[in-house]
Amino acid sequence: MADHVTVRRARADAKDVADLVTRLAADYGERAVTSRAVRDGHSHGEGFADSGLPDVVVFPETNEEVAAIVGLASAARVPVIAFGVGTSIEGQVAAINGGVCIDLTRMSRVLEVNAADLDCRVQAGVLREQLNAELRDTGLFFPIDPGANATIGGMASTRASGTNAVRYGTMRENVLGLTVVTPDGRIVRTGGRARKSSAGYDLTRLFVGAEGTLGVITEIQLRLYGMPESICAAVCQFGTLEGAVQTVISAMQQAIPVARIELLDDVQMDACIRYSQLEGYAVKPTLFFEFHGSESAVAEQSGALQAIAAEFGGSAFERATRPEERNRLWKARHAAYYAAKAMFPGKDVFATDACVPISRLADCLLETKADADATGLVAPIVGHVGDGNFHLCVPYDARDPADRAKAEGLARRISLRAIAMGGTCTGEHGIGIHKLDALVAEHGEAVDLMRTIKRALDPHNIMNPGKTVPQ
Amino acid sequence: MADHVTVRRARADAKDVADLVTRLAADYGERAVTSRAVRDGHSHGEGFADSGLPDVVVFPETNEEVAAIVGLASAARVPVIAFGVGTSIEGQVAAINGGVCIDLTRMSRVLEVNAADLDCRVQAGVLREQLNAELRDTGLFFPIDPGANATIGGMASTRASGTNAVRYGTMRENVLGLTVVTPDGRIVRTGGRARKSSAGYDLTRLFVGAEGTLGVITEIQLRLYGMPESICAAVCQFGTLEGAVQTVISAMQQAIPVARIELLDDVQMDACIRYSQLEGYAVKPTLFFEFHGSESAVAEQSGALQAIAAEFGGSAFERATRPEERNRLWKARHAAYYAAKAMFPGKDVFATDACVPISRLADCLLETKADADATGLVAPIVGHVGDGNFHLCVPYDARDPADRAKAEGLARRISLRAIAMGGTCTGEHGIGIHKLDALVAEHGEAVDLMRTIKRALDPHNIMNPGKTVPQ
Repeated sequence: MADHVTVRRARADAKDVADLVTRLAADYGERAVTSRAVRDGHSHGEGFADSGLPDVVVFPETNEEVAAIVGLASAARVPVIAFGVGTSIEGQVAAINGGVCIDLTRMSRVLEVNAADLDCRVQAGVLREQLNAELRDTGLFFPIDPGANATIGGMASTRASGTNAVRYGTMRENVLGLTVVTPDGRIVRTGGRARKSSAGYDLTRLFVGAEGTLGVITEIQLRLYGMPESICAAVCQFGTLEGAVQTVISAMQQAIPVARIELLDDVQMDACIRYSQLEGYAVKPTLFFEFHGSESAVAEQSGALQAIAAEFGGSAFERATRPEERNRLWKARHAAYYAAKAMFPGKDVFATDACVPISRLADCLLETKADADATGLVAPIVGHVGDGNFHLCVPYDARDPADRAKAEGLARRISLRAIAMGGTCTGEHGIGIHKLDALVAEHGEAVDLMRTIKRALDPHNIMNPGKTVPQ
Repeated sequence: MADHVTVRRARADAKDVADLVTRLAADYGERAVTSRAVRDGHSHGEGFADSGLPDVVVFPETNEEVAAIVGLASAARVPVIAFGVGTSIEGQVAAINGGVCIDLTRMSRVLEVNAADLDCRVQAGVLREQLNAELRDTGLFFPIDPGANATIGGMASTRASGTNAVRYGTMRENVLGLTVVTPDGRIVRTGGRARKSSAGYDLTRLFVGAEGTLGVITEIQLRLYGMPESICAAVCQFGTLEGAVQTVISAMQQAIPVARIELLDDVQMDACIRYSQLEGYAVKPTLFFEFHGSESAVAEQSGALQAIAAEFGGSAFERATRPEERNRLWKARHAAYYAAKAMFPGKDVFATDACVPISRLADCLLETKADADATGLVAPIVGHVGDGNFHLCVPYDARDPADRAKAEGLARRISLRAIAMGGTCTGEHGIGIHKLDALVAEHGEAVDLMRTIKRALDPHNIMNPGKTVPQ
């Protein structure tokens, strides 16, 4: 879909870019890098193989440095692309018009942890696993878990979620406030530490999910949670995909506060069993659960879910309460993408991201599976099904135009099917450059309001141009 | 603080207004009302006595009619003020520049209830109690409860919350999508029915809390919840305010999922005992609780809280599980404002709305109580303290400039104190016209971004001018 992208302004003037690179080299020395290898490494994320070389990669260490870099780029009308660790998968970080890539990984400090208030403030380059490691002694944790060990800034920018969102919400619900460098180089704080506020427009939610098109997020105030007294994982296998999906629907409708509820279809289970040496499981549609709470609450929740699963033909629960057992299961779940990739060595893999109201989940999954089967592509399904969100991890050959067309056609039909069922083309991966058409199909006239906001806040279209909202 | 308000454009040209009123009368007949009584009734909300007469009140019945009215007002550059039932308390609905008041109470249908998906779509004029009455047979409920029987459109526009927010979140978390009429008269849908989405900018959250300054909300897609299997209310009295507050802080830090946790200080208890004939309670700082869940979960939660309360000098819990007992308690709690009003017949009452991180709650409450005592004003305290949010209901004489200055001074100090403690000047009442200065004190440079958005989406400043964001 990238072919249809138009931007308000073409690539910046070559001399302006050269002057800016010279100036950044003078100001930042070895922290302004123009080597081909580093620029290559900052030219793309994961997923579809779109890329775009930035002209320079700068590694700022403070809010003020980010503001200075953006200010210079703004004056020169040169694009600015914020970069974490490049795990986004819709082309969000490809410098498709060149420009300055701002790598935030040197801004990687946890600035404050307010244990009593269950919140913390981190720099944008802090990694998810790093944050939880630093929190360990406090008895608190940050639950949002998109699988990849992404930066918190990147997770905020793509409105990420993942396996825990069914219980703890997404980045939308868990970001209390932000520090943002605006397109004209100002440092602005949004939101705050209060749990709720009715003070003015919700700028925090506007920047969360904006994929760096409205400003560069440099700091994030996050909600934290107490480590549950008890955690129990469980695995349940089903004879049919319908049985697994109906179990999820019932659990959600009965409001069982499950912390994770993940579906792997038979194809994905096959891949995961091989890739992660998961022993003792059949190649069947499977649900992975996790329950958080007091010991009695966890027992009550898992008992209730086991009863529901049994109604729909589920096997007896295999429970894992010891951390190492649980970790093995979730590691296998998180490796689903790599397991799919390993099925066809040398092929690329792209992931779809439909999310629908739970009552339409069975229809959407089954139609999608039939659609995928008809293309001849092998398409394992994995999903955060408690939210109605599922992914196909589709191995394909990016260098083969026919294979690529087949893959993109499937991806587009999945987006449109989810939208037709009252859902969204992206539950958590974002729009990037690949879903601009789908955004218009989903939001229609509202896209014009998004465009108005983009033009008002970034009149020179320098912030990650060509992404998120068609101009 | 209303004195400092400036608007980009003065009152609309008198002839333009007259022509518009004539046109609306022609189009809407008896549904376009210019009688003084009806305009008076639409000139103010509750709280501080600011008011402003609209030139005409129109009662549309469809999205298209709202769009047509806004389109005409836009062409004539005449202000538009959306109106529900007038329970906002920061001057949000005062037509301070005249204009067209759009009364949405004839748009009062519940459009769809998707029980399986735990969501519904309602017109903006649906009342909170009406919605829950219509939901009763489904086993579902909508938890947000600001006390007043407000319209859902008004609650969305002020980002309302209330007693249940500690468990279920605020309107921010519970609005899935909106239908909005934009300042140029287009009908736009935002969000959707999926539980989460990363598709583009979060317009839903931008309109929630915008107090009608960016558009008129005409329909709201809401999250619903299953009625809990078991509900238990409890009351606990304390020798000191500190004991009550420390109990709340401990409960929050231990993440006990209490559904409501409300504080009434001794002055407020005195007022409530008299006003609501609450028998058997002492004039002491008091916590009202409610627990939702399975029977065992409710027993576990209330047992844990009772143990915490006992540590801080709380009395034995007095529990109420029967609906009529619970309702009596919560009715008394919700009548706090009227109970305060009844203490001084003939006086007005305004409510403050500080919200701070929970670790600062005791400091903030105690300093505020001392501050209020020093003014000589009687200031009962009531609060959604699980969120760090509390209100003073302050009786004063609006016609006495000295009394009003004293009341406004106290209100301003409370806002600034909350901000200095890392909190917000308004947890749930909004900015309206009274807190424009406080918004600037709280958000600084970010207010400029809000202004940029306002000017981009409403270039002629016709949507509820003079509110929410200083122009």
